[in-house]
Amino acid sequence: MHEWYGVYFPELGDFAVDAEYARLVSELGDRQAIMDHLGVSLESVGTDLVERDLEVIRGLGGTLSELYRRKEALDAYILEGMDRVAPNLSALLNPNLAARLISLAGGLQRLAKLPSSTVQLLGAEKALFLHLRSGKRPPKHGVIFQHPWVNRSPYWQRGKVARSLGGKISIAAKVDAYRGEFIADVLKEQMERRVAEIKEKYPDPPRREQRPQGRPQYQRHGQGRKQGQNRWR
Amino acid sequence: MHEWYGVYFPELGDFAVDAEYARLVSELGDRQAIMDHLGVSLESVGTDLVERDLEVIRGLGGTLSELYRRKEALDAYILEGMDRVAPNLSALLNPNLAARLISLAGGLQRLAKLPSSTVQLLGAEKALFLHLRSGKRPPKHGVIFQHPWVNRSPYWQRGKVARSLGGKISIAAKVDAYRGEFIADVLKEQMERRVAEIKEKYPDPPRREQRPQGRPQYQRHGQGRKQGQNRWR
Repeated sequence: MHEWYGVYFPELGDFAVDAEYARLVSELGDRQAIMDHLGVSLESVGTDLVERDLEVIRGLGGTLSELYRRKEALDAYILEGMDRVAPNLSALLNPNLAARLISLAGGLQRLAKLPSSTVQLLGAEKALFLHLRSGKRPPKHGVIFQHPWVNRSPYWQRGKVARSLGGKISIAAKVDAYRGEFIADVLKEQMERRVAEIKEKYPDPPRREQRPQGRPQYQRHGQGRKQGQNRWR
Repeated sequence: MHEWYGVYFPELGDFAVDAEYARLVSELGDRQAIMDHLGVSLESVGTDLVERDLEVIRGLGGTLSELYRRKEALDAYILEGMDRVAPNLSALLNPNLAARLISLAGGLQRLAKLPSSTVQLLGAEKALFLHLRSGKRPPKHGVIFQHPWVNRSPYWQRGKVARSLGGKISIAAKVDAYRGEFIADVLKEQMERRVAEIKEKYPDPPRREQRPQGRPQYQRHGQGRKQGQNRWR
């Protein structure tokens, strides 16, 4: 959309993005009309388009707007359902991620019965079995990687954060499965404290295993494994 | 969509697919209403849904229908444009694939000037440079693989078909770029004949290089290369 409409009006990207961009293109379309609407005035460097081309681009903008609206409606629906079914899990993480975990586990009851080390890796089955089969490094997190607590932490802290979060998720799931009271606030606070603790205790990247940052490291069988390290196959 | 609505009415998949499926769900939604509309009567094994769930699924069906409609409109637009700009190329292949090639080449004029061996590999640049760098096998086709002439042929004929098709594309592009007459019929006929010829001449898979069918083969450097085979780096 951006690339296509940008031929005609490249400057619009500075004033609107995503849903707003799509809405402006589909509803107004004309460069001048959009500038009037936004209250800006500039000499666009874009080229003119014939009416037929603009019409097709506007249609695409309309479809995109529809997709954004649909996403909002589905998010609201999930929020609503999760608030009813698993309020603690939903508040501890966020409704979408909580729903994802329940789906991966095959139901709230099942999620509540899983060990927290399994919860930690839900969604990383492929990496886990690759590890078990071929001795590659074990994964440190499954879909919970999506949570900022995990993905905003530097890589050497992530495993610890993920293990701790797996535990809290297990607790929240158990409470929700048996319709307990609302304790997500407490869990969240504990989690915050634990993240801060990890941050303080492990401020520096480990020296032993040097990883080129930014790029994943692919290891051959056996390489990089410490002597005597436990290896369950 | 299928998975979700299928909880409620799994049998619908036998009567409608894709766009029609999405349309029925969004416009009618109710199981009984759809059965009446289709003139079928059966005892569904699906479970009932609360009104709120059905409503959300119908909304999703509406968005899907919108996407199908948009795809049709874009296809029509491309067809229209290609008929005007590159009638031969468009008729030889199909409008979408022809547009893709022009886009990869950076314009019809540029496409017309490329050697046909380059045309044959447009869109396979990654595989080509991997070949040049590391001695992996060279790719036999780029995006033209999408054409049934190529992808419907057995693997040992594909390279020959692709080379021939690359040549015909070059001719069509040159004629279109210089606004020549319509010769796509002739090109198509020649191509059909050449494909039949290849089929007749090479009916059997080669014996020398045995490939496990169905799975791509990853070769290490040097392996599988015949003695004295030309190797340009």
